[in-house]
Amino acid sequence: MPTFMDVHEGFVGATAQDLQAAHDADLRIEGEEGVHFERAWLDPVSGKAWCISHGPSKEAVMRVHERAGHPTAEVYEVPIEVS
Amino acid sequence: MPTFMDVHEGFVGATAQDLQAAHDADLRIEGEEGVHFERAWLDPVSGKAWCISHGPSKEAVMRVHERAGHPTAEVYEVPIEVS
Repeated sequence: MPTFMDVHEGFVGATAQDLQAAHDADLRIEGEEGVHFERAWLDPVSGKAWCISHGPSKEAVMRVHERAGHPTAEVYEVPIEVS
Repeated sequence: MPTFMDVHEGFVGATAQDLQAAHDADLRIEGEEGVHFERAWLDPVSGKAWCISHGPSKEAVMRVHERAGHPTAEVYEVPIEVS
């Protein structure tokens, strides 16, 4: 299953509770698209957030985020990973 | 220890070996700055890469990447994370 990195903007001043609520909204519906959001990180100063997910396609990831109320056009397939 | 997300551009067509070599170059010197690079992801189509690290400051993360030969000015502290 491909891995995706997506990028959000506009979360200046968001809190841990805000990110958890957004993540929970994704988790509630992700199964309908065969997607799983693994981790998300937020910088409340720049308002940027990033999510790592696994799913069948970039479009499926985008649909989950859109339906959950935080759409983004910036979704990148990341087939190469190191740790 | 704060967590950071950094963003690189210009890796169009890079391979898993390229990313591993860049990551290894970071790992060899990161200890001198008190930084640890945890994971990195690469999209060879857009040429974008992202790293998650832990360290004392954004500047320390930037110094490791610069000394390792792949500088970036885009380093964000991400104090909020969910999984």
